[in-house]
Amino acid sequence: MTELQIEIIGLTAACLTTGSFLPQVYKIWKYKSSDGVSLSMYFFMLTGVILWFTYGMLIRSISVMLANLIAAILQIIIIYYKLKLK
Amino acid sequence: MTELQIEIIGLTAACLTTGSFLPQVYKIWKYKSSDGVSLSMYFFMLTGVILWFTYGMLIRSISVMLANLIAAILQIIIIYYKLKLK
Repeated sequence: MTELQIEIIGLTAACLTTGSFLPQVYKIWKYKSSDGVSLSMYFFMLTGVILWFTYGMLIRSISVMLANLIAAILQIIIIYYKLKLK
Repeated sequence: MTELQIEIIGLTAACLTTGSFLPQVYKIWKYKSSDGVSLSMYFFMLTGVILWFTYGMLIRSISVMLANLIAAILQIIIIYYKLKLK
């Protein structure tokens, strides 16, 4: 398998797992309502995602970096709205 | 940085992001109640997680493999309970 083919698998995985966050972000943004997941849990996840991004840089994996960069942005948006709704 | 140090960062990231799933699994199991996230979304995520696991094997990353193996197990448990609760 070429490196490009491997990255296509990684990027498809990234689209699916990060994409599954979008409805949650949309719901919070659109209905200005929370989603039952606690704020501290999102901070917990954000720390993990930042570490994943660091790990992705260290192993030079574009898929890991990109997936977690987008996930971090989405989580910051969720945290912002959750703090605003408080 | 040694490979071991890099994997420690990856495994810490894995603990944080996969660990943040546990309260959801616990809530569904304990209170036999759903968590607002749709069943189709969990199938979507499960497909992504299986692809991540494949990607982890191809780039030989223990952290990516382990994180997604555990995430897959947790998601299968959630899907099982969601189907049972239906």
